Amino acid sequence: LPQASRLDPGLRSETVRRANLSVIVRGLHEHGPLSRSELVSETGLTRSAIRGLVGQLVDSGLAVEDRAVRLGTPGRPSPLVRLDAAATTALAFDIAVDSLAAAIVGLGGVVLEEVRIDRPRGHSSVEDVLADLAQLAAGLGDTRFPDPTMIGIGVAVAGVVRRSDGLVAIAPNLGWTNVPLGARLSVALGVAVPVAVGNEADLGGLAEHRRGVAVGVDDVLYVSGEVGVGGGLIVGGSPLEGAAGYGGEIGHMPVNPAGSSCRCGSTGCWETEVGEEALLTRSGRPRDAGRAGVDEILCDAEAGVAQALAALADVGSWLGVGLAGLVNILNPRLVVLGGQFSRIFPFVRDSLQAELERRALLAPRGLVRVVPASLGIDAPLLGAAELAFEPILADPAAWFGPRLGSARLATA
Amino acid sequence: LPQASRLDPGLRSETVRRANLSVIVRGLHEHGPLSRSELVSETGLTRSAIRGLVGQLVDSGLAVEDRAVRLGTPGRPSPLVRLDAAATTALAFDIAVDSLAAAIVGLGGVVLEEVRIDRPRGHSSVEDVLADLAQLAAGLGDTRFPDPTMIGIGVAVAGVVRRSDGLVAIAPNLGWTNVPLGARLSVALGVAVPVAVGNEADLGGLAEHRRGVAVGVDDVLYVSGEVGVGGGLIVGGSPLEGAAGYGGEIGHMPVNPAGSSCRCGSTGCWETEVGEEALLTRSGRPRDAGRAGVDEILCDAEAGVAQALAALADVGSWLGVGLAGLVNILNPRLVVLGGQFSRIFPFVRDSLQAELERRALLAPRGLVRVVPASLGIDAPLLGAAELAFEPILADPAAWFGPRLGSARLATA
Repeated sequence: LPQASRLDPGLRSETVRRANLSVIVRGLHEHGPLSRSELVSETGLTRSAIRGLVGQLVDSGLAVEDRAVRLGTPGRPSPLVRLDAAATTALAFDIAVDSLAAAIVGLGGVVLEEVRIDRPRGHSSVEDVLADLAQLAAGLGDTRFPDPTMIGIGVAVAGVVRRSDGLVAIAPNLGWTNVPLGARLSVALGVAVPVAVGNEADLGGLAEHRRGVAVGVDDVLYVSGEVGVGGGLIVGGSPLEGAAGYGGEIGHMPVNPAGSSCRCGSTGCWETEVGEEALLTRSGRPRDAGRAGVDEILCDAEAGVAQALAALADVGSWLGVGLAGLVNILNPRLVVLGGQFSRIFPFVRDSLQAELERRALLAPRGLVRVVPASLGIDAPLLGAAELAFEPILADPAAWFGPRLGSARLATA
Repeated sequence: LPQASRLDPGLRSETVRRANLSVIVRGLHEHGPLSRSELVSETGLTRSAIRGLVGQLVDSGLAVEDRAVRLGTPGRPSPLVRLDAAATTALAFDIAVDSLAAAIVGLGGVVLEEVRIDRPRGHSSVEDVLADLAQLAAGLGDTRFPDPTMIGIGVAVAGVVRRSDGLVAIAPNLGWTNVPLGARLSVALGVAVPVAVGNEADLGGLAEHRRGVAVGVDDVLYVSGEVGVGGGLIVGGSPLEGAAGYGGEIGHMPVNPAGSSCRCGSTGCWETEVGEEALLTRSGRPRDAGRAGVDEILCDAEAGVAQALAALADVGSWLGVGLAGLVNILNPRLVVLGGQFSRIFPFVRDSLQAELERRALLAPRGLVRVVPASLGIDAPLLGAAELAFEPILADPAAWFGPRLGSARLATA
């Protein structure tokens, strides 16, 4: 007999109940409160099945039923079911180039508390960052840490991350190589809940898909422009991770092999043509002028300064070149420009579109729209919370029982 | 109430039975005959559930149970369950640049009959191609056409295909634009079974994943090198289609924006550096020397002719440039070089690998292997059969009943 199963698992009565609980919890998490009638019509399950499943979610403390409300439809009013954001929470962190952030997010996606502090650019020791994160977290919530409602921790980091164990293979802006961030954060915070780590662009894309401009769109290319350029790809409704979670490094797609050297060791990566440094140097500024330098360029552009407009147009053209390739490869319905790209969008739109028209195949190009992101700087932080919630969305029943019971007692 | 359901459908007892039938049929189709004991251990379903489900498959004529065989394991021998390849078949076509092919493939992936004829390169009218395909199909199987066992038709075509309805948006080598190939083939063949059309590289990748060198690998990049260069991407175990099935046009990723003009209207697409014409011109041959010209280059290379070796090494370098970008974007576990690329593989391997080392990020590069394809010229044809089988794999129960019953009578 084979070692590992080659077939998909079959569905047994117990797995069916768990799968249906997952459909309901994921639905409420992504779409907000729904009436029992809506749950019946949207899932195709019977009224009595929904009653039973919702009852289990209420008993476990994951959901609450509000007093029945009339929805303007005929018939008896149907009780409104919502997740209890205060009873089940995730702690989210964002380790960005210019800032560190922490938030407590309730199941259902409600941001209960959030704090963000600037950090100086450049290399930081892992110890320093962990200490800063612990301090941020301790300032959130009530005086007890960890809060007993917390079921998991999600971390967004500007680096290449192995999803299985939260190893940061490389984070050039932090100066990190092979840092077991998930394990070290568990130790630093002294918590037993799972810690999931993801790349900031992957998680920014996930957040825009769940909570932002890409809600309801199954094929999305999120392009994050910070110092580095990263991508968060949604393919057929799910994040593209690749073999180990390293997928989405679109900033290191070679677009100009005779071009400038890249931090990654290659030359002519997309990032070298569209990243922050490319914009700064094209506008005659020092390459390390940072976010303040970009602010100046945007001011100049508003005032009609030719060099700033030309630098932005040039970045726009190269954005269009790379996007054309990605549109041909991935056939997305929506391209979402995040980070700095959403700020410069009005000034790069025309030159971007011109290259896209010239280089993308007619068929996929005709289906795609390019829009700025809607969640701003918080997208990776919100995506980190989504990552932390994923296990409870996939199998809510695994969270019934003693842990949740005690959490409810503790917060009662 | 919403128009379209925002939630995933719930699982009801009827959908559970159908889903479990799908797990079994897909398992037998992809992995070959399995004993009832193996089905129990691999699906996690009970012995009695497997007995019931297998009984339904046997009653419907999809599967047969062979006499119990001893598997070298203790205990009672367990009957071996296999799909009945002769009772349920697909008709597959391949419209390639240099040839047309047709095959009858049995459920389970058994090629029952196959025929391939050369076609002259260049533009062909849709009418001519349809007539040729009809003639090929009529020569297969017994004298009746359509064969009553045939449940669907799959077509691979060297073009950009909208998956939902088989519209060929553009097929540059055939000279086709906006050809409703699926509908026209149904009419030309006078059949009522579904016709599914896919891009040849997408289907080549699917075949290598199901039947070839990439079996069991969840993240695969299949690169098809014919006159054009296309990709078949497997992401998390499933084909990447994108919003409309146009995904995978990796040949039109801009790698050298100052480079040569491409058939697509852009400049410096990957195809202009690694396609057949690039190899031919680099070796001093006419760009239209075709497959015979490539044969000559390979002969020269075997004999150590410097110009041929240099041309191949140059193509290898550019292969490595593009693959580095794709490895960074997709984090595949396996890159499969198909079509002409599998033939030239021994002569491009070193220069390809050197650029890949130089340009791919360390983390994803460390996980990926580059191998030649194993199914040769037949990969798209086999993938077309897989496409035709997909509906019966996804929901075998929908095929129980009158149609299969009469098919069995007709072939009895």
